[in-house]
Amino acid sequence: MSDPCMASVSHLSAKCLRHKLCQELSKMDYRPTQQQTWRPTTAKDKGIWVIYGNGVYDITEYVAQHPGGTKILMAAGKSIEPFWEVYSVHKNDEIFEIMESYRIGNIKEVPAKSATKSANDPYKDEPIRSPLLIPSSEKPFNAEPPVQMLAEKFLTPNDLFYVRNHLPVPCVCIEDFTLDLALSTGKPSLTFKELTQKFPKRSVTAAIQCAGNRRSEMVKVKPVKGLNWGSAAISNAKFSGVSLNELLKHYNVDIDTVRAKYIVFEGLDTQPDGSPYGASIPLELARMLKDEIIIAYEMNGEPLPRDHGYPLRIIIPGVVGARQVKWLKKIYFSPEESTSHWQRRDYKGFNSSTDWHNVDFDKSVSISQLPVISAICDPVDGQELEEGAEEVTLKGYAWSGGGRGIIRVDVSADGGETWHEATLKPNGQTPYHSYAWTLWEADIPLPEGATQTQLVVKAVDVSYNVQPDSVAGIWNLRGCLSNAWHRVNVTVPPARV
Amino acid sequence: MSDPCMASVSHLSAKCLRHKLCQELSKMDYRPTQQQTWRPTTAKDKGIWVIYGNGVYDITEYVAQHPGGTKILMAAGKSIEPFWEVYSVHKNDEIFEIMESYRIGNIKEVPAKSATKSANDPYKDEPIRSPLLIPSSEKPFNAEPPVQMLAEKFLTPNDLFYVRNHLPVPCVCIEDFTLDLALSTGKPSLTFKELTQKFPKRSVTAAIQCAGNRRSEMVKVKPVKGLNWGSAAISNAKFSGVSLNELLKHYNVDIDTVRAKYIVFEGLDTQPDGSPYGASIPLELARMLKDEIIIAYEMNGEPLPRDHGYPLRIIIPGVVGARQVKWLKKIYFSPEESTSHWQRRDYKGFNSSTDWHNVDFDKSVSISQLPVISAICDPVDGQELEEGAEEVTLKGYAWSGGGRGIIRVDVSADGGETWHEATLKPNGQTPYHSYAWTLWEADIPLPEGATQTQLVVKAVDVSYNVQPDSVAGIWNLRGCLSNAWHRVNVTVPPARV
Repeated sequence: MSDPCMASVSHLSAKCLRHKLCQELSKMDYRPTQQQTWRPTTAKDKGIWVIYGNGVYDITEYVAQHPGGTKILMAAGKSIEPFWEVYSVHKNDEIFEIMESYRIGNIKEVPAKSATKSANDPYKDEPIRSPLLIPSSEKPFNAEPPVQMLAEKFLTPNDLFYVRNHLPVPCVCIEDFTLDLALSTGKPSLTFKELTQKFPKRSVTAAIQCAGNRRSEMVKVKPVKGLNWGSAAISNAKFSGVSLNELLKHYNVDIDTVRAKYIVFEGLDTQPDGSPYGASIPLELARMLKDEIIIAYEMNGEPLPRDHGYPLRIIIPGVVGARQVKWLKKIYFSPEESTSHWQRRDYKGFNSSTDWHNVDFDKSVSISQLPVISAICDPVDGQELEEGAEEVTLKGYAWSGGGRGIIRVDVSADGGETWHEATLKPNGQTPYHSYAWTLWEADIPLPEGATQTQLVVKAVDVSYNVQPDSVAGIWNLRGCLSNAWHRVNVTVPPARV
Repeated sequence: MSDPCMASVSHLSAKCLRHKLCQELSKMDYRPTQQQTWRPTTAKDKGIWVIYGNGVYDITEYVAQHPGGTKILMAAGKSIEPFWEVYSVHKNDEIFEIMESYRIGNIKEVPAKSATKSANDPYKDEPIRSPLLIPSSEKPFNAEPPVQMLAEKFLTPNDLFYVRNHLPVPCVCIEDFTLDLALSTGKPSLTFKELTQKFPKRSVTAAIQCAGNRRSEMVKVKPVKGLNWGSAAISNAKFSGVSLNELLKHYNVDIDTVRAKYIVFEGLDTQPDGSPYGASIPLELARMLKDEIIIAYEMNGEPLPRDHGYPLRIIIPGVVGARQVKWLKKIYFSPEESTSHWQRRDYKGFNSSTDWHNVDFDKSVSISQLPVISAICDPVDGQELEEGAEEVTLKGYAWSGGGRGIIRVDVSADGGETWHEATLKPNGQTPYHSYAWTLWEADIPLPEGATQTQLVVKAVDVSYNVQPDSVAGIWNLRGCLSNAWHRVNVTVPPARV
């Protein structure tokens, strides 16, 4: 695979793009501060600029006229090109002409620093990624899409699907690849071709969520260890592949009677000592899901992308992302949980009085199914609404683990004093086998005369589970399971008279 | 059945007992006020008395010496005899002797008022009930056991199991009784004998909970319509009977393929217009539970008591009590929910901004599976702990609907500032098929020097669902689903020096 930093501008990785911005804009007359460039929420005060080609454009004045509203702010301080790849209506002469009137300077290409990357770097073969992704760490690569884009599509486009890697992305030669099963009836190894051709293709549409989604809210209560995820460490896709149950049956293994307590999955991604990423789920849970667990080789109709497990990922709907092992290499039954770090010493819940000096990971149950959650994707925290706005349109997602469908989403524009029911967009699944997320939307009145207010969302699942009110009540040392009411602060400038 | 009010003293109904107390004690020299008799939490100030036989005893001075501690306060203002039926260690000469030293007066028997009960009273044939039950309504009869007794036994004794009746208790002549099935394959009617002899006996241990359990806490936020339940409208029992799935199979009905959306249950209890109590659950849920739904004729090894559905009750584990139809008469499949009031116009959830002027019952999903809940049973709210106590022992229950086992119970002795993990008593069930409740216990330090404090409990289920922090956030016009953190205020008198 070619070095991502040598690719054309429109496919530059986020890292390279930022590198260029920092290196090159420092030579220009216009020098935006860190705050100005990366926190574009105070547009009118500090100036908003974007780059296109080699041009730098100050669009501060234009924002109010933008037909797509404040969405343009997603590109503030960045190249606007990857956004135009998604919103392609922009690529026309009229818009290029408008753009030119805002040009404030130019950047020039320099050889990318990463061209000197060491041949020993375990991360030297990372895939090319969408520059739209917002990384929370580079090595291993972890990133979420801009949260405003998340609620736009029921199926998250593959290149925007949040990425949670624990280790370098393996390079897989598909001709040599096998999936290895260790069963009581034998130890078959299946080639990719056998898997895709011998077994019927099954599909499930499911949201996958990182246990640390919305961790950044928990950090505000007290520091935690973990990636500083916003609200977009969750995405939704249609996964297709082989039914685990059908595969096991083919080898005369009956999941209902097999003698074991756990089913263990191992990936091709390895630690420096050679041990693989591993995870397990209780066999009881696998029995309940049965035909719904899929060894996926497709994601939204395309081959599984490298960042999402190419060639195979185990899809266990309703369960935390960490158990849905990517680059799946091995499956076996066991009397005990996976012995991996991530099963035994991570991804567990604790109460808020447990800290690193008194934590006992052995006493806590590994996270499998996740609880009910929701988030406002649009507007974003700190956003300035229209001058004199009397109502606001909220968009977001809601989801619960264990296949529990969402039955109600409540939204508030006054910090949770009064509530309105959002309109749910049916996900096409049944209430107790609802693995996809539910997108929702609501137009609600803003408090009269308020110049700032807090928007809030909370969801209810079919088992009438609700989200906890406060982050403080669920704080835990790893910052997992951050599913309190989601709060977004916005300002409303008074109408001009 | 004989009039309960003519029965011997030790079997007097709570109603009759209170009637007697009010009628008779008014003739005595000692006249406790309402507050003194029914809210025995300020013992040392106002005097505590109990009755035994025809004696009235002021035990104020004795409470501190009682080997069972403040449990004796459960009988304050009442006959102590039904408690001694449970705690039978008390029936000995030594204790009778101690008692006599506290006698302050006597009561004399009068003909009970209810002996004049009308023959037209639809409630004339109600069963005899334990006087330990605390009624929230008399007609229909609804009552919960003293909450302190609830966490004492994993299986709630039948006569202490909370009672939730919507209508008069039917009188069933077992020889004439049939269970009627309306199936696509026929309309069989089964006698009680056929049911109990033709099919294998299956059992499930399950907690049943009223949707309104802990409603009294919601009332404090804003009035709601509903019985003013404390924390004991939940109980746990082993139910035995015929597997619904096996019965259907016997009549060639496959629950997985039957064309319908709901399974409907009707009781023998009828409204004045002759229509029966009815409820339904989605067929999807019935399919998931399958062999776990039981047509019960036994409860804790005894014939189903009249108050709990004699001769048959449908047991749908993990689901709200209201769907577990008592005096079960008819089962059928339907394309729509039960049309009963209780399915369509009751037992649904709403947000806290929905009130009677804007409620639309059709828009809300009927409650089936319940969310995670817990409660402190001992100490009780308002209780005075031992003088100078430095720690407190908490006991209670935790449970979640949908078979989700309890994985953690957190308790606090400082209003939720710091948390300790309670010790769970395993319920013997598996994490994802955990229908029984989990009792728990914790010895935790009291805040140093505090003379009053708030004890708190919250539980976590296997899907990491948590309880909401505050009652206000889940308030709803019917006062259902009151599962916020449970808070109990206690006082700690300073140690005497």
